[in-house]
Amino acid sequence: ADLWTVGGADLGSRVLLGTSRYPSLQTLLDSVDASGAEVVTVSVRRVDLDASGDGQTLLGALRQRGLRLLPNTAGCYTAREAVFTAQLAREALETDWVKLEVIGDDETLYPDAVQLLKAASELVADGFQVFAYCGDDPITARKLADLGCAAVMPLAAPIGSGMGLVNPYALRIIRELLPDVPLVVDAGIGTASDAARAMELGYDGVLLNTAVSGAQHPAQMAAAIRHAVTGGRLARSAGRIPRRLYAQASTPDAGRVEVDE
Amino acid sequence: ADLWTVGGADLGSRVLLGTSRYPSLQTLLDSVDASGAEVVTVSVRRVDLDASGDGQTLLGALRQRGLRLLPNTAGCYTAREAVFTAQLAREALETDWVKLEVIGDDETLYPDAVQLLKAASELVADGFQVFAYCGDDPITARKLADLGCAAVMPLAAPIGSGMGLVNPYALRIIRELLPDVPLVVDAGIGTASDAARAMELGYDGVLLNTAVSGAQHPAQMAAAIRHAVTGGRLARSAGRIPRRLYAQASTPDAGRVEVDE
Amino acid sequence: ADLWTVGGADLGSRVLLGTSRYPSLQTLLDSVDASGAEVVTVSVRRVDLDASGDGQTLLGALRQRGLRLLPNTAGCYTAREAVFTAQLAREALETDWVKLEVIGDDETLYPDAVQLLKAASELVADGFQVFAYCGDDPITARKLADLGCAAVMPLAAPIGSGMGLVNPYALRIIRELLPDVPLVVDAGIGTASDAARAMELGYDGVLLNTAVSGAQHPAQMAAAIRHAVTGGRLARSAGRIPRRLYAQASTPDAGRVEVDE
Amino acid sequence: ADLWTVGGADLGSRVLLGTSRYPSLQTLLDSVDASGAEVVTVSVRRVDLDASGDGQTLLGALRQRGLRLLPNTAGCYTAREAVFTAQLAREALETDWVKLEVIGDDETLYPDAVQLLKAASELVADGFQVFAYCGDDPITARKLADLGCAAVMPLAAPIGSGMGLVNPYALRIIRELLPDVPLVVDAGIGTASDAARAMELGYDGVLLNTAVSGAQHPAQMAAAIRHAVTGGRLARSAGRIPRRLYAQASTPDAGRVEVDE
Repeated sequence: ADLWTVGGADLGSRVLLGTSRYPSLQTLLDSVDASGAEVVTVSVRRVDLDASGDGQTLLGALRQRGLRLLPNTAGCYTAREAVFTAQLAREALETDWVKLEVIGDDETLYPDAVQLLKAASELVADGFQVFAYCGDDPITARKLADLGCAAVMPLAAPIGSGMGLVNPYALRIIRELLPDVPLVVDAGIGTASDAARAMELGYDGVLLNTAVSGAQHPAQMAAAIRHAVTGGRLARSAGRIPRRLYAQASTPDAGRVEVDE
Repeated sequence: ADLWTVGGADLGSRVLLGTSRYPSLQTLLDSVDASGAEVVTVSVRRVDLDASGDGQTLLGALRQRGLRLLPNTAGCYTAREAVFTAQLAREALETDWVKLEVIGDDETLYPDAVQLLKAASELVADGFQVFAYCGDDPITARKLADLGCAAVMPLAAPIGSGMGLVNPYALRIIRELLPDVPLVVDAGIGTASDAARAMELGYDGVLLNTAVSGAQHPAQMAAAIRHAVTGGRLARSAGRIPRRLYAQASTPDAGRVEVDE
Repeated sequence: ADLWTVGGADLGSRVLLGTSRYPSLQTLLDSVDASGAEVVTVSVRRVDLDASGDGQTLLGALRQRGLRLLPNTAGCYTAREAVFTAQLAREALETDWVKLEVIGDDETLYPDAVQLLKAASELVADGFQVFAYCGDDPITARKLADLGCAAVMPLAAPIGSGMGLVNPYALRIIRELLPDVPLVVDAGIGTASDAARAMELGYDGVLLNTAVSGAQHPAQMAAAIRHAVTGGRLARSAGRIPRRLYAQASTPDAGRVEVDE
Repeated sequence: ADLWTVGGADLGSRVLLGTSRYPSLQTLLDSVDASGAEVVTVSVRRVDLDASGDGQTLLGALRQRGLRLLPNTAGCYTAREAVFTAQLAREALETDWVKLEVIGDDETLYPDAVQLLKAASELVADGFQVFAYCGDDPITARKLADLGCAAVMPLAAPIGSGMGLVNPYALRIIRELLPDVPLVVDAGIGTASDAARAMELGYDGVLLNTAVSGAQHPAQMAAAIRHAVTGGRLARSAGRIPRRLYAQASTPDAGRVEVDE
């Protein structure tokens, strides 16, 4: 099987799925199942950690499936908030994994590189496995890797935009700069082919939420993403043909079958 | 199952695979198997139809798998040549299906719209099921449909170029002009995500050859295409989220889980 | 000066401007002046050729400026209509120039390649200088050139769409196939940079209408196009730097000025 | 005239030109003249500030033309180096303007956001007019503006790559986030249309070097850029037509001229 290792875990699936904004809990669970995800993100701020509310229902259902929880720090604007939220999550969810988001602007939701690096540094020192959501700036990505993050997760486009890979050029440079670090495309994916392209660029996985939860048929889109990720991953290692400006006949003009040559 | 009907046949697979230029017959057959294709194209000019040579070996192996053969008129530059080749194929392969190629230029391999329309008209009148390989000009595509072609198959990019969908805009217009005609993207596909995008544009299938036969690992690329086509097809009907310039929080800033709302 | 020759005329300007749909005659004339165009298209069907109406006012004002008139066959759907319209225009406007448009679809306004080639053949035989508006199919473009058209004018995108160069790949192939034929990008240009790109691809000129007439400030957009065309043309022959994935320092790390090397 | 104000100066030209890597001093000066630039960047590290070498010849020739010098901190990898270099430049060149570059990687030459912000903060406090070269991350761009930089200058693509605007999406968001700050596209421009597009996105100017110095005919490319920038700037304020998927007839099918309506 095509396993990969991140944060100390061996995973078979390369889809990481967010659990926000689904039309119903059942749709969420159906989508998780259809996606094949082994890791799901949960927002600590959204989950009522002490009580027996909807949050507990959600967590229970996710745990029952044997899923790994990746608590996120969505809605945090400073390193301090993010670190505090991560610590809260660790205690409540009993995991040292954290998806680190430190937002710089509440309209575009772009991450704040400075606060992000600060928080990542503190969390790594505190023993966390940090999955760092970042922009597509190669230097920030490399710094996050150098700090010891478990995964570096540049955006394809802003959260919830569905714009797809607006800068495949930067994503490619990040992959080349960091050949040995788990890289996940996080945010901006809109549909299946976006996920396939991320894998074809050599990324280890994709993390998405709105593309699934906001689709007309979420579980079907989750299945679509699953297939596309598998396809993109296979294509990456299959060694694609080069692009050529001009065509080349796939069928030679004359003569016998050359299949046995 | 997600069946579609073309040329009088109900098909489960949306991948049509060419059989030229594989490194070996075994690799070809492995690729066909991995692609899940139910239809394969064969070049009449390449197959020694009367003798017991490699061509017979190929045909035998394909028929043993229950595959439908789609003979093509590759290498024809005039309507007359193409019609003659199609008739030869019908007799030899006992099928009224034909992939009609009429090439206008031996460097770029772009089709010749005028000769193509002439040949399509004659072949339809002669009882053929014409799968017409054409450029991405919407008017020519509509004329081919109006003539009664079984499928209209615009190029994504020149044959063998691996450029992917160089003009998704024109492909989209063709789909909108011809909502009820079987449409297949033929030529130019380079990798899995290209195939996914073709399906997301609402095409009924993809036909490819070099992307598979020329890959470093053909059978693996065939599997990649199969997954990507499934993913793209599912995504099309799942109803993707709209693209937005600005982001939208997938995790609300505060409050309880809203999954049950 | 950077002259070019088309239809027997030496021209200094590489902008050809349409005269339809301006908010006022004055705006039209201001735009023509600002564009620097020496050739303007006029619709025979729009101009009341016998009477002293608005059409005569327009023609008078254009002639007063010494502009060459390029009557078009806009609104024609068959070769026959187009040929008839061209003949009418020749008589009325005393020019053997004609911009040949044969539309294949009244929604997308894509040209009909078959009717276009037929009309071009007849008009060339009848002594016209044919400026042929066509799709971006390289084979049709080459046929038009082989027929003896004065200029081949592929679209950048559908008329009035403002989409810009949706398929620069095809435009580039046409330029390479036809190195010695006057090539003009016609239709689809939306703004100045589109016009610059057309020139950078090696086209000899651009023909546009809606981008100017439909702008909020038409004469200003006409001036913008004029500058962009000049810029794009200069850039083409200046020999641009190659694209590189990775950066290269424009300022060396150390040492003395090397400008005199 | 179309003046703009940056760093306390009113400028008529929107081209800022680098002075590195020209084939000869004469070519450099011809290019500066052809570009119409009023501001040129010079590398402090490259210029022998005390002696009467080539650097003095260059500076003398530039000053003779009345150009404003914008010393840069090219080759600096830390805030400390950059601040020191800026102070050196101020003393030697008697200007408080500085183009702040803090490079994060010597292969891609991407800027280091953290060191950049640190240096910008110190330089602004020290009375400099800081022209900050940055990535296309909107949050870093806004922080630079909030610090009081004279101009924020995101890259179009890596220095010297000639890739053009690889992420117009991010550039657009930066413009929308910072409507009142002088914004200049710096680095990555390869040819005239790239410069036009930068202006059409609403940027106040473009800064480039390799696109000119590395062209086959540098002074001609400088002229090309000048025209394209003028064209793009005019187009921006002319109010372009919207993009439409489908075409719209620019010439109505029938009837009289409507230019006077």
